[in-house]
Order: sequence, then C-alpha cells, then structure tokens
Amino acid sequence: MSKSRRRAANVRKAARRERRAQTIGKPPGAWRVDPAAPHAGVRVVAFGPDEIEEHAKLDGLDTLRARFPVVWVDVVGLGAAKVLRRVGEAFSIHPLALEDVVYVHQRAKVEEYPGGRYVVVRRVRTNEDGSLGSEQVSLFFGKGFVVSFQEGEEDDAFAALRKRLRANLGRTRTSGADYLAYALLDGLVDDHFPVVDALGDRVEALSEGVLAEDAEIDIVSQVQDLRRDLQILRHAMWPLREAIQALLHDESGAFEPATRLYLRDCADHVAQIVELLESDREVASGLMDIYLSVTSNRMNEVMKVLTMIATIFIPLSFLTGLYGMNFDTGSPYNMPELGWRYGYPALLALMFGIALALVGYFRHKRWL
Amino acid sequence: MSKSRRRAANVRKAARRERRAQTIGKPPGAWRVDPAAPHAGVRVVAFGPDEIEEHAKLDGLDTLRARFPVVWVDVVGLGAAKVLRRVGEAFSIHPLALEDVVYVHQRAKVEEYPGGRYVVVRRVRTNEDGSLGSEQVSLFFGKGFVVSFQEGEEDDAFAALRKRLRANLGRTRTSGADYLAYALLDGLVDDHFPVVDALGDRVEALSEGVLAEDAEIDIVSQVQDLRRDLQILRHAMWPLREAIQALLHDESGAFEPATRLYLRDCADHVAQIVELLESDREVASGLMDIYLSVTSNRMNEVMKVLTMIATIFIPLSFLTGLYGMNFDTGSPYNMPELGWRYGYPALLALMFGIALALVGYFRHKRWL
Amino acid sequence: MSKSRRRAANVRKAARRERRAQTIGKPPGAWRVDPAAPHAGVRVVAFGPDEIEEHAKLDGLDTLRARFPVVWVDVVGLGAAKVLRRVGEAFSIHPLALEDVVYVHQRAKVEEYPGGRYVVVRRVRTNEDGSLGSEQVSLFFGKGFVVSFQEGEEDDAFAALRKRLRANLGRTRTSGADYLAYALLDGLVDDHFPVVDALGDRVEALSEGVLAEDAEIDIVSQVQDLRRDLQILRHAMWPLREAIQALLHDESGAFEPATRLYLRDCADHVAQIVELLESDREVASGLMDIYLSVTSNRMNEVMKVLTMIATIFIPLSFLTGLYGMNFDTGSPYNMPELGWRYGYPALLALMFGIALALVGYFRHKRWL
Amino acid sequence: MSKSRRRAANVRKAARRERRAQTIGKPPGAWRVDPAAPHAGVRVVAFGPDEIEEHAKLDGLDTLRARFPVVWVDVVGLGAAKVLRRVGEAFSIHPLALEDVVYVHQRAKVEEYPGGRYVVVRRVRTNEDGSLGSEQVSLFFGKGFVVSFQEGEEDDAFAALRKRLRANLGRTRTSGADYLAYALLDGLVDDHFPVVDALGDRVEALSEGVLAEDAEIDIVSQVQDLRRDLQILRHAMWPLREAIQALLHDESGAFEPATRLYLRDCADHVAQIVELLESDREVASGLMDIYLSVTSNRMNEVMKVLTMIATIFIPLSFLTGLYGMNFDTGSPYNMPELGWRYGYPALLALMFGIALALVGYFRHKRWL
Amino acid sequence: MSKSRRRAANVRKAARRERRAQTIGKPPGAWRVDPAAPHAGVRVVAFGPDEIEEHAKLDGLDTLRARFPVVWVDVVGLGAAKVLRRVGEAFSIHPLALEDVVYVHQRAKVEEYPGGRYVVVRRVRTNEDGSLGSEQVSLFFGKGFVVSFQEGEEDDAFAALRKRLRANLGRTRTSGADYLAYALLDGLVDDHFPVVDALGDRVEALSEGVLAEDAEIDIVSQVQDLRRDLQILRHAMWPLREAIQALLHDESGAFEPATRLYLRDCADHVAQIVELLESDREVASGLMDIYLSVTSNRMNEVMKVLTMIATIFIPLSFLTGLYGMNFDTGSPYNMPELGWRYGYPALLALMFGIALALVGYFRHKRWL
Repeated sequence: MSKSRRRAANVRKAARRERRAQTIGKPPGAWRVDPAAPHAGVRVVAFGPDEIEEHAKLDGLDTLRARFPVVWVDVVGLGAAKVLRRVGEAFSIHPLALEDVVYVHQRAKVEEYPGGRYVVVRRVRTNEDGSLGSEQVSLFFGKGFVVSFQEGEEDDAFAALRKRLRANLGRTRTSGADYLAYALLDGLVDDHFPVVDALGDRVEALSEGVLAEDAEIDIVSQVQDLRRDLQILRHAMWPLREAIQALLHDESGAFEPATRLYLRDCADHVAQIVELLESDREVASGLMDIYLSVTSNRMNEVMKVLTMIATIFIPLSFLTGLYGMNFDTGSPYNMPELGWRYGYPALLALMFGIALALVGYFRHKRWL
Repeated sequence: MSKSRRRAANVRKAARRERRAQTIGKPPGAWRVDPAAPHAGVRVVAFGPDEIEEHAKLDGLDTLRARFPVVWVDVVGLGAAKVLRRVGEAFSIHPLALEDVVYVHQRAKVEEYPGGRYVVVRRVRTNEDGSLGSEQVSLFFGKGFVVSFQEGEEDDAFAALRKRLRANLGRTRTSGADYLAYALLDGLVDDHFPVVDALGDRVEALSEGVLAEDAEIDIVSQVQDLRRDLQILRHAMWPLREAIQALLHDESGAFEPATRLYLRDCADHVAQIVELLESDREVASGLMDIYLSVTSNRMNEVMKVLTMIATIFIPLSFLTGLYGMNFDTGSPYNMPELGWRYGYPALLALMFGIALALVGYFRHKRWL
Repeated sequence: MSKSRRRAANVRKAARRERRAQTIGKPPGAWRVDPAAPHAGVRVVAFGPDEIEEHAKLDGLDTLRARFPVVWVDVVGLGAAKVLRRVGEAFSIHPLALEDVVYVHQRAKVEEYPGGRYVVVRRVRTNEDGSLGSEQVSLFFGKGFVVSFQEGEEDDAFAALRKRLRANLGRTRTSGADYLAYALLDGLVDDHFPVVDALGDRVEALSEGVLAEDAEIDIVSQVQDLRRDLQILRHAMWPLREAIQALLHDESGAFEPATRLYLRDCADHVAQIVELLESDREVASGLMDIYLSVTSNRMNEVMKVLTMIATIFIPLSFLTGLYGMNFDTGSPYNMPELGWRYGYPALLALMFGIALALVGYFRHKRWL
Repeated sequence: MSKSRRRAANVRKAARRERRAQTIGKPPGAWRVDPAAPHAGVRVVAFGPDEIEEHAKLDGLDTLRARFPVVWVDVVGLGAAKVLRRVGEAFSIHPLALEDVVYVHQRAKVEEYPGGRYVVVRRVRTNEDGSLGSEQVSLFFGKGFVVSFQEGEEDDAFAALRKRLRANLGRTRTSGADYLAYALLDGLVDDHFPVVDALGDRVEALSEGVLAEDAEIDIVSQVQDLRRDLQILRHAMWPLREAIQALLHDESGAFEPATRLYLRDCADHVAQIVELLESDREVASGLMDIYLSVTSNRMNEVMKVLTMIATIFIPLSFLTGLYGMNFDTGSPYNMPELGWRYGYPALLALMFGIALALVGYFRHKRWL
Repeated sequence: MSKSRRRAANVRKAARRERRAQTIGKPPGAWRVDPAAPHAGVRVVAFGPDEIEEHAKLDGLDTLRARFPVVWVDVVGLGAAKVLRRVGEAFSIHPLALEDVVYVHQRAKVEEYPGGRYVVVRRVRTNEDGSLGSEQVSLFFGKGFVVSFQEGEEDDAFAALRKRLRANLGRTRTSGADYLAYALLDGLVDDHFPVVDALGDRVEALSEGVLAEDAEIDIVSQVQDLRRDLQILRHAMWPLREAIQALLHDESGAFEPATRLYLRDCADHVAQIVELLESDREVASGLMDIYLSVTSNRMNEVMKVLTMIATIFIPLSFLTGLYGMNFDTGSPYNMPELGWRYGYPALLALMFGIALALVGYFRHKRWL
C-alpha cells in the first residue's frame, strides 16, 4: 500500500504549493483560485412548501430570493474565480470566508460573520486504492439562503437530499434555511459511517492476521497505513464535533428550537463516529505490541528448540572426539575401551542414554 | 475464546447493516423497524398508593392515565412498528427519540424533549460463552408516565421491581413517575455489579496465571479478550455516568428533591462500577508487560544454561580434536603425550579440571 | 508475599458477597447488617467548655443533647442492626446514609442530607503481613452532634482525640460540633502518614535492590505488590481529597470561619499525602523498566562473553579437525605438515597466535 | 547533524549568560543591553489613507504622531540602549516591558500595560545547516502607534507588509493601529508555514528511510534532531496560540470588531500550524518504535537462518565424529560399517537424508 | 552519585521523624521546634523613602512599626521557640501558620489568614556533591510589615535585596510592604535560574554520553539521579506557579495595581523555569530509550558478527570431520579422495571456496 502513502505525500505537497500561493506576502482576504481546481458549476434550488425550481446559472438570484422562502446555491468545483466572486457578492460573504472556501485545507470549524454563519466540513472518502483522502465542503448560510461549496466535482455529496427535496419527503420543504443547513450537515456527517465501517473491518482483519501463524513483516506497514487513515478521519471528525457543538450552543437564534433537536441528533452521530474511531485507534495501537510480542515469542520458541538440539549433541560429539584420539593403545591405561569387544555398542548405548537424560531434564524443567 | 471474538464481529456487522438501513439517504426521524428484531410485547402497569392494575395490551391507556397517578408501559422487543407507533402517539414521543429507540446501537445519554426526558442505557450482559454483550434499554418519562423499551425479550430487566410494586415494598407505589424512572435506572445499574465481579475474577485468575510456571502463549489472546470485554463495559458505563450526572444537575424540576437523594445514590453506584472497572483495566494493561517480562526472563534463563553447557564443552572438544590429529609421532616434538603410559588418564583429569574451573568461574560471576 | 495477594482477593470476595446481599433486588435504602460484622458497641461523649460526660449506652441521648452543646456518639463495629436503627432515629439519619454506613466498601465522599452532612473516609492500615488493607469510617454530623461509625473494633481511631477531650487540651471542648467533626477527620487523615512513610521505605529498598548485583526474579512480584498497595492508598486518598475540598468550599455554613482555617490545614495534609504517593508511584512504575534494563544488560554481558569464548575456539577446532583427516600421506601434497619434525609445536604456536589475534580484535572493537 | 546540536547548546549558553547579567541581584525593570547584540537601526513609517512618510531616525516623532493617524516605529537589532530608551519614553513603554524586549529569550505572550499592549512572538527560522533556531520579535501598540522590536538585523520580517503599505494594497492604510498590529502578527505567523513544511518533508523522508532495507544506526540521531526541532517550533507556537486567543477575547476594545474577524483568521493559522506540528510529532514519536521493531525483526531473521544452518550440521558432524573413533575393528561389534564396501556412500546418503528431513521439518514448522 | 541518593534518603527520614513529632496525637496548631534546627537570629529592617534602620533584636518592634511605613523581620534558622512565639504575637500570626513555618516540609502555597497572607516557597539549592536539596522559606505579610522565615542559616537568600535597600536602588524603599513581599519572592524565584542551568548542562552532557561509543552501564544510574533532581525542582516549582498565580488573581487588594505588574513578571519567570524544566524532563525521559536502543543495537552487531564467524566454520569443520573418518579405504567406494595425489589441496580449495561463497551470500543479504 505504498501507493496510498505516495498519494498522501502528493496531497501534502499540493497543499503546501497552494498555501504558498495563497498566503505568502499577500494581504489577508485577497484570495486566488487554484488553477488546477476543476471549473465551477452551480446548482440553484429555490423552494417553498408548495413550489420548487432548479437552475444551473446564477442569473436572477435576487428574483428567486424574493419569490421563495429558501434559496440554496450549490457551487461544485472551485476553479472559476468569477462564479465565486458573484456568489460572494450576491450573499455578501466576507472575503476572509471566501479565502477559506478557496484554500481547501481548512480544518472543520464554524465562524460567525456579519450576515451569516460559515461552516467548514472535511469530507473523508475512500480512494480507489482503499486509502482515505479528504475534501473540503463549506456552507455559508443566513436568513433565507444557504450556499454550499464542494471541492470535488465527481461525487455529489447532496444527491440524496436533492431527491428528497424534489419528492417533498421529510420536513425540508416546509422548514427554513436553518433546517436546510442542518440537512446538508447531516448528510455530510452520515456519509462517514461507511468509511468508519470499512476502517473497522480493516482493524478486525489485522487483529486476526496478527495472531495468525504466518504473520509477515508486512503487518508493520499495514498497521502504519491503518493508523494514518484513522488519523485522517480523526483530524476531520474531532474539530467537526466541536464545530457542531458550537452551533448547538449558539444563542443568537441562528437555529430555531425545533431545528435544534435535529442538530442535536446530528451532533450525536458525530459523537458516535468519534467513539467508534477512538475504539479502533485503541485496538490499532495495541496491534503493534501484540505483533511484536507474538513475533518475539515465536522467535524464542525457534531459538529454544534449536539451541536444545545443539545442546544434546554437544556432549555426544565430545565423546566421539574422545575416542577419536590417537593415544598409544599399547599402554593399558590409554583408552582400553577401544579394545573391548563390545566397546562400540556400549558407547552407542551410553550416548543414547545421555540424549534421553537430557531430553528428560529439559522436559522436567518445562523447557520443551 | 475466538468464539467470543466472532460473536463481537457479528454484532458489529449487524449494527452496520442496520445503520445503513436507518440512515443512508433517509430523512431524519423516519425510523424503520429492524425485521430481525423480536416482536414487541407490552406490559402496562398502572398504580397508585392503594391500587395496581396490570395489562398486556395498549387499549384503554387514556383511561388508565386518568385513573392512576403513574402509568408504566414496558415495551419488550422492538420488532413491531405498529406498537411503537401507538406508544409514540399516546405519549407524544418525538420521532427522533423513536428513531433512537429502534436503532439499538446508541451510547448511554439523556435528552430533553418537549413532553419528557429520553434516557438510553446500555445494559451489559454475560453471554453463554462468558464473553460480554450489550443490549439497549431506553426510558421515556414525563408527568405521570414512564415508557421503557427493552431490546431483548428473553431476560426481563425489571422483574424484581415489578415484584416489589405488586407487593408494595419500598417507596415506589407512593411516589410519582420520577421515582419510578429512578427505580428502573437503579435496577439497570445494579444489574452490572455481577458483571463487574465476574470480570474481577477473570483479572485475578489471569494475574495468577501469568506468573505461573507453565504460562502458555494463550495468555496473550485471553488478555486481549479480557481487555475487549472491559472496553465493552467501559463504553457502556462512562457515558451512563455523564448521563446520570446530567439528570442529577437538571434544574428543570424533572425530579423532586426527595427523589434526587436516591438518584445521587444511583450515580454513586455507577461511580463505584467505573472505579472497579478502571482499577481492573490498569491491572489488565499491566498483565501483558508482566507476561512479557516473565517469558523473556524464563527464556533468558534457558538460553543462559544451555549456552554455558556449550561453553564448557567447547574447550574439551578442542582438546579431543588436538589429540585426534595425525601428526607423525616419529618426531619427539609431535604430541609426545600420545605415547605416555598415563597420557589418557592425565588428559581426562585435565578436562575434568577445566570443566570444574569454568563452572566455578560462572558461579563466581553469578551467571549460574 | 502471595499471602497479601490472597488476603486482597478474600477482601474482594467478601465485598461482592455483601454487595449481593445489599443491593440485588432490594428496594433502595433497605439496608441489612452483615452477619459477619463485629457487634456494635457505642461510646457517647457529651461535653461543653466546662463539663464532660461519657456513657457506653444510647439511653438518655435526648437529655444529653439538651444539657450539652456537643454530643458525640461513636459506634464501634457495625454488626448490631438495633443500635444502628436507634442511632439513625435519634439523629434522623437518612436511610440511604445508613445503607452506606453498613455497606463498608464505599469510596470517600461527602453527601449533604437534610439534617446533616455524611462523610465517608477509607482508613488504610498495615496488616500484620505488611500488606495494606482499608476500613471504612463514616461521620454524620449536624447541629450539636457528631455520629461516627467505625467498621473495625480492634483499633480505636479516635483514642488520641478522646484523651485530649478529657484533658481539655486544644480548642475542641470550647468549640462546636463542626470543630469536633474536623478534629475526627484530621485524626483519620494524620493516621495515614506512617503508612505513607512505610511505603516510601519499601520504594527505596526496592530501588536499591533493583540495581544490586543479585537481583532476583522475585523483584517482579515485589514491585507488583508495592504497586497494588500504592493503588489501595491512592484509591482511598484521591476521593478523600475531593471530599474535603467539597467540605471546604461548602457555602451553607456547616463550618464556622474559624474552623475552616483548620479544615484547610487538614486538606493540606491530604494534599501532602497524595503528593508523596504520586512521587512514589512514579518511582515504582520506573522500577520495572530499570529492572528489565538491568537484567537484559547483565544477560547480554553473559551471552557476549560466552559467545566470544565459542568464537575463539571455533577456528582452533577447525584446525585440529584439519590435521585429524586421514589423507594418504604418501602423496607429498597431502598434509606434509604432519610429517614435519616441528609440525605439532608450530601448529600449537599458530593456534595460540590466532586466539591472541581474535582477543585483540574484540578488544579493539570494544566488544570485551 | 551534530553541528545543529552544538549550535543549540551555544544558544542555550548565551541565554544563560545574558539571563545572569539581566536578573541576578538587579532590581526588576532595570534592563541592560546585551553588548553582543547588533546595533539598533530604526525605521519610522507614518501613514494615513492618503499619505505615507518613511524616516530612518527618531526625531520629530511627536509631529508625526500629530499629523498621521498611525505611526509605526520598527527597531531592528537591540544593541543600542539609547535608542531603546528614547522609544520607551516616546510611547511610555513600561520598564518591565522594555526588560522583556531586551532579554530575548521570552516565550510568546500578551501583556496589558497602562498605555498599550505588549506582545512577544518567537520567530522560528531555519539555519543554514537545516536545523531550527528562533528569534524574538516583540510589538508594543496603543492608540495610533505600533512599535516593533526585531532581535536580528539580517532578515526583515516585515518587508512584504512594508511594500503593501507603500503600494496601498489591502486595508492597512485605511485602518487604524490595531489593524497594523494584526498585520504584523499575521506576517510573523505566516512566516512559519515554510518551516512547518520543511519539517513535514523531513518527517516523510525519515518515515521512508526507517522502512528501507539499509536503515543505518544514524536514523536514531536524525530522529532525535527532528524531535528537537519539532520541540523548538512547538515551544514557539503553543504559547503564541494562547497569546492570540487572549488578544481575541480581550474585551477592552483594543481591537475594533472589523479587525477582530482578521485576528480570528490569524488565530486560525496558528491553530493550523499547531495541528500540522502535532501530527508530525505523533509520526516522529512512532518512528523510533518502528525503527526498533524493523531492526529487531531483521536481526531475528538473520539469527534464525544462521542458527538453522548450525543445527543442520550438528547431527552430521556428530556422525563424522562417530566414524572417526579408533575402536578396534577386530571385534565384529565395533563399527562394522567401516569395513563395508558401500559404507561411505551409505553414510553420505544418510547425512543427505538427515539434512533434507531437517529442512523439511523447519519448513513444516514455518521457521524458514 | 549514590552519595546523593543516600542524602535524599536521609532528608526523607528526617522529614518523617519530625512529622511524627509534630502531628501524631497532638492538637492542631500546637507546634514544636525541631531540636536539631539551628538557633534563630533575627534581622529587623525598618524603612521609608528617606530613612532606614537595621536591628538584630525584636525589642521595640511597636515603636518601629509606628515610625516607619514598612518593617521587615527576617528570622534566620527556626530553632528558637521563644523568638518564633514573640514574632507570632507581634504580628498576630495564626498558630496554624506558625506550625507550617516550623514543619519545614511544606509544598509551596499561599494562604489567607485574618491579618495577612502566608506564602511558602521551597528554595532548591545545589549541594556540594552536585545533587539538589531544598529548604523552606516562608513569608507572612500584611499592612506595613513582612516577616520572612529562613530554614537554613548558612546562605542568606536576601543579601542582594538588603544591599539594594541600603543603597536605595530601585523602587523598594518608596513602595509599601506589598512591593517588599514581591521583591523577596522575586529574589527567591530568580535564585533558581542557575540551578535550572546546571541541570540543563547535565542533560546535555548525558545526551552526548549516551550516543558515545563507550557508553557504560553507569549511564542508567546517572539518568536516574538526573530525573530525581528534575523531580525535586519540579515539586518545588509547580506549586509555586499556582501559588503566585493565586496571589496575582487575588482580588482583595493585597497588592496595589502597580505592584501587580511586577508580580506578573515574577509569575512569568516561574513559568520560564517550569518550561525549561519540562523540556529537560522530556529529553531526560527519552534518554533511557535511546540508551537501551543504542546498547541493544551494539549488542546485536556483536552477536551477528560472531554468529557469522561460527556459521562459516561449521561446514568447514564438517568436511574435516568427514575426512577424519576411519572407513576401510580398501573398498574403492570408501572415500577414494583420501588416496588422491592432490586430494588435500583440492579440499583446501573447496573449503576456501565455501567460505568465500558464504561471506558473499551474507554481503548480498546485507547481513554484513
């Protein structure tokens, strides 16, 4: 999985290059579009309890805002400076907020600006090679409108909600912009459950693998990859938890009491994700210890058995050496055994006895 | 105990499947019953200081609520959508609360809804194979009523309380719905003491086993199982502690002052469980270290002894090799010892002396 | 010291048995006396600045309370339900408080009840075998009275204070019930200094032992015992610290300002104990690391020396093997050395040279 | 990289020497210039929305302050006591603040003085040898003025801002002294992104290196250097985060609401740096573990293979010893094999068979 | 450095002996002078902006207090009960405060008493053998007076301040008693910088030593000593930090606003010390890990080389054994090589080839 590591390194490098372009020696709030970013498309949805209209251009926004209780502008891909500027002007989004929209390496946060609230969510997704990556989705919402900015253009985070809106399912059509903002957040949060589940499966597979007989050295790098991915999800979820808590305890009336109950439910989901994550992290950080202990135990077993084989043969070899010496057998004191009729069988028996005794001793000592 | 691990994996998989069914692409609050859940039975108990009535159906709930100060509806098994819907309507339970009732993988929590408080408790129980599992029990209580939802149908969590109610023991019959809610919580909490005690026994058994002479490699996986079970109980108890503290410091008058003293006692019990748990966790996390140190010490002892045997024989074998050489004994400088009358006995004596000296040296160095 | 471990296990078992008797399926507040507990004796002391009276029975309590500013009832041993019930009624002690008095496995805490404050202290004592155990002492005090409950009957925790009272030393006789409660607490706290000191001695002895040449495998279990005892003291002292802080910051006037200065001093003593304890814990938890590092270093030294002996002899033995081969010495190319006049002495010299060179090399590499 | 370590040691020594000169036995607030510090130059910039003037001397400060809404005095190099004294008097800077300006080893902090706010920032920079060092930059700002003090004279921290001021880019010229102070802080903070990025590259390079086949012992000291540098940056950034938070929550009106939005952005940047840093720290602290595990695994592999080679040859050598014994072959029981026609080939076959069997056994046991 | 350890143990023992004398069975506030303490001398300094008087006795304190704005009584050595009692009465110091003055093993703290504030500082000093020890210095100050109590008599903590007072340097003479108290505290705090610096030098020396080629087992005990000394300083500084923070946030007007700025500076110095300390602690706790890793790496290198030497010779020795067998060379199948003309040189060449091949293989595998 070194591919995933290389990908992560590339993402980091891109973030640095872009950051340099955005921040070094530039006045704050003077944002610049990343030339490599995809071109922005827009999806404007204006709705009330009875009517819904969808457009793919920004013209006539003011009319729509006058006619409908809620207008939702969804900007997909952040490569078109003109579109961002028009949206920013239409809803008086502060330049600092737009800078954060464009520099897509923010951590999740909520910021209050005059005229609205700005929420950043890091959306973690599984890449094709199984590693995790993250995109930035941000929301700016105020009285009667929500603007959402999606970094990537491939995968629509809000498709399910859009369908529900058209079909007039749930409370979204009949509620205000605050409920829409909640629904968008909720969709983004619930999107992470499959990611967490996949991580859980990887943790379990590795837990099994680590105890298996044929654990390979590769386990080390797989556990490393797993911890890196858990880390990515964690860096996305912890600040999100704080951010949603901040929204929940916001006393300025941005959310109506009825919507707050739903927002609390959303906060609860983030808490569930964080808890699953922490429990996975704990298991994962124990995996290395178990792996090392298992490996070292197995190694010890091998060494012990081999050393015992050596130990058994050492006295036997000594004996063969003894009777291989060239003492003059003329003297009756020099190895008379060599001349005995049954000398050799007797020696073989002695050797066998020594080997048996040693094995018995090792057994007795519980070394075998 | 890999059975327990497989069971845990299955529980996780079921949770994921269900979560997918509940949340992905669904409007919030639109709950759906798990088709694999047992069918719901209900037990309605209505009582006052003097009278008590028990029913097994939901009809006539309004009459009962009018006639008795406290009505308790106990829903056992969450498989019947109709029953849940009727109960929800009868006590105006918020759809989000009902969603949490049905999706039985919540963490313990307290939530305030208009019309009542919703409490989730994770009830940890010992499976037949000795591993731990957990069920969700939730309470919704308000003025004059308590509704309890039990996930499993096999084991009644409230049997003891029901008996006390019938026999009019304790203060339950004479107190309000808040005291009943307390009593239900207290019963759920006290149910965990035997579980904690069983874990304590396992910790102690493993502590003994780890120091025993014949500690097996299996210890590793048993300690892992133990830590997993401690983790399960911990994940149930820590949020419960917070939840009960939240109830205790709730200033909205949900609990009368007299009941609060009892609730504080209940919070104290949770704190006791948590403390026992943490102390077990500490011991358990030290077990691996002790095990490794004991194993490695024993291994070292083995290796040391064997290496010493080898070391003692190495010079002796060298000597046998020496006198096994085929130098022409015609020259008086070439191994004249071979021709001596007492050459062989002298060599044996020398060898014995060398072995003794080496053993003495090792003893002196405290290596033996 | 496995005796201490067995004792600890027995205490745990007793706690479980009793808890089962107290809590499972019983209405809260319905306490039951442990039949194995010693029978309760009572010591009633009533005093004012000028007078002091002592009784050994509960009769006439009301008269005493009317006549004296402070009445102190000391219940020793908790085996007599009747005595407890009478004391409870005389001072209107809440049933939940009495339940905690009787179930002697509480953690230290302060609870406010109508009519008084209930304080639990765990009193840690050294058993005869040197291990630590703990008893529960609880106080209930209110306007003009203090009731103390001692679990054990053998060792009077309050003997010194009783003497001071009789001799009218210090401020106790002239102050109110709050000062008496403080004095009791202070006596209980100061009782722990010798225990902490003994633990400190054990820590120091083990620190020395671990670095000593002949450290035995027994160190592991001694360090375990030490950590267990530190844990016991810690579990007694940490909650006590919180409890006394709670008393100190109690704004309800339970303590007069003058007494509060003394209570702060008592809190300071607990803080000192906790600090000594934590510092001991830190040293103790480092002991295992040092022990392992010392053991492994020593083992490495042994192995290194032995391996070097083997390595020096291996080439020498090879040479003896070489000249032990039976090549036909008829050919002038086949081991002509065997026929040399000084072949053997030359070989001996060569071997000696090789051994010297190897030792020199090892020295040079700093392996020896 | 021991050069970097030596440099760090030198910096520490200089700090100590200077501290001794500043603090020991001196009345507080009696600062003294470090004689080794570079001589101070000053850059005075006075500006309003329409006009901007730059001077390189302190004369006429009062006139400038009267004529322009904002006056910025930038003191570069802290070696000239006279200059510092004049600046101090001109803006009534408290002697304690000046002491902190001169003793350039402060941690980042914000302090409120009558007449202004004093902010210390540690500016971390990469030395030529790749190691990190830090300089102190401090700001004192109040109504209509900002004074900045730069420790080093080589590298101007504020060059980019000065250019923007002259070109009248951004909001600086049209805003007050509080915005200028923010802009200076923001420039100092953003300066750290390249430093963090370089550290990130080092972390990644080491992560690769640690798993590479030819990991050298040098890794240990490189990881140490890396952790030291991470530590330096951390010690600069953590207090800075707190300091900027303190500025942000300062309720005394030092910052106008519009400027606060920008300050929040700056706080966000510090938070980003800290997060990158913590994530690098976590990886770095795991590197040693991985390195040790990889090294030990590789070592184990080597030992295992070598031990097996030895084990295979041990029985074979025993056999050669056996048939090297000099038993009198006159007796038919003494090694009759020696006299067989095919004795030697049979023995060779036996040896080959034993070797094969052992290899097979090791394979079967997954030891090879 | 076991001397330092013995000294530390002695200090602990003395503390215990004294504690027993002070607390066991004594009424609170009934202090007793340690008979082994040096006899108390007093230095009375009374001063105002214009005048200063110094005395070495306690007589006439009241007159001095009437004549001068500030009176400072410095008690050196705590062995004279009479002196302490007189000072206590003169400034109405609470008996509990005097008890803490006499029992010189307090942790740093601030306590408010009626009539004044009591501050305890632990003054850490370097003993002659390089280890650290600590003395207690306490201050009691109120309106118009400061009393300081120094445990040791050898080394005057306040000499520098006394000189400044006489020379009328700084603000001390013109400020009130609160500034004097600050100045005393500041002197005590700044005294610790040289101690921290010496510890930093030891940390650096050990960091170098640990990586050096000839690291000895002694490193373990030196690191232990270092950590013990860091611990001592830490136990003195952490509570001091809290104590000074408490003084700083004390709203009762004990310090005038102008003095508070100075006190904040003093708090800053303590924070600097604590930061240096924590960074040293971190390095020190990493030292053991590095040492173990370096040692184990070196050991592994040794074992690897030695094992390889053994492995190379094992097949060669097998060959010599082979040709040492006594098969009847009458049969043409029995070791015909023995009879070859170039048999021996061929075998030597074969052996050389095998050795070369093995070395090549080890090189290829990067084991050498």
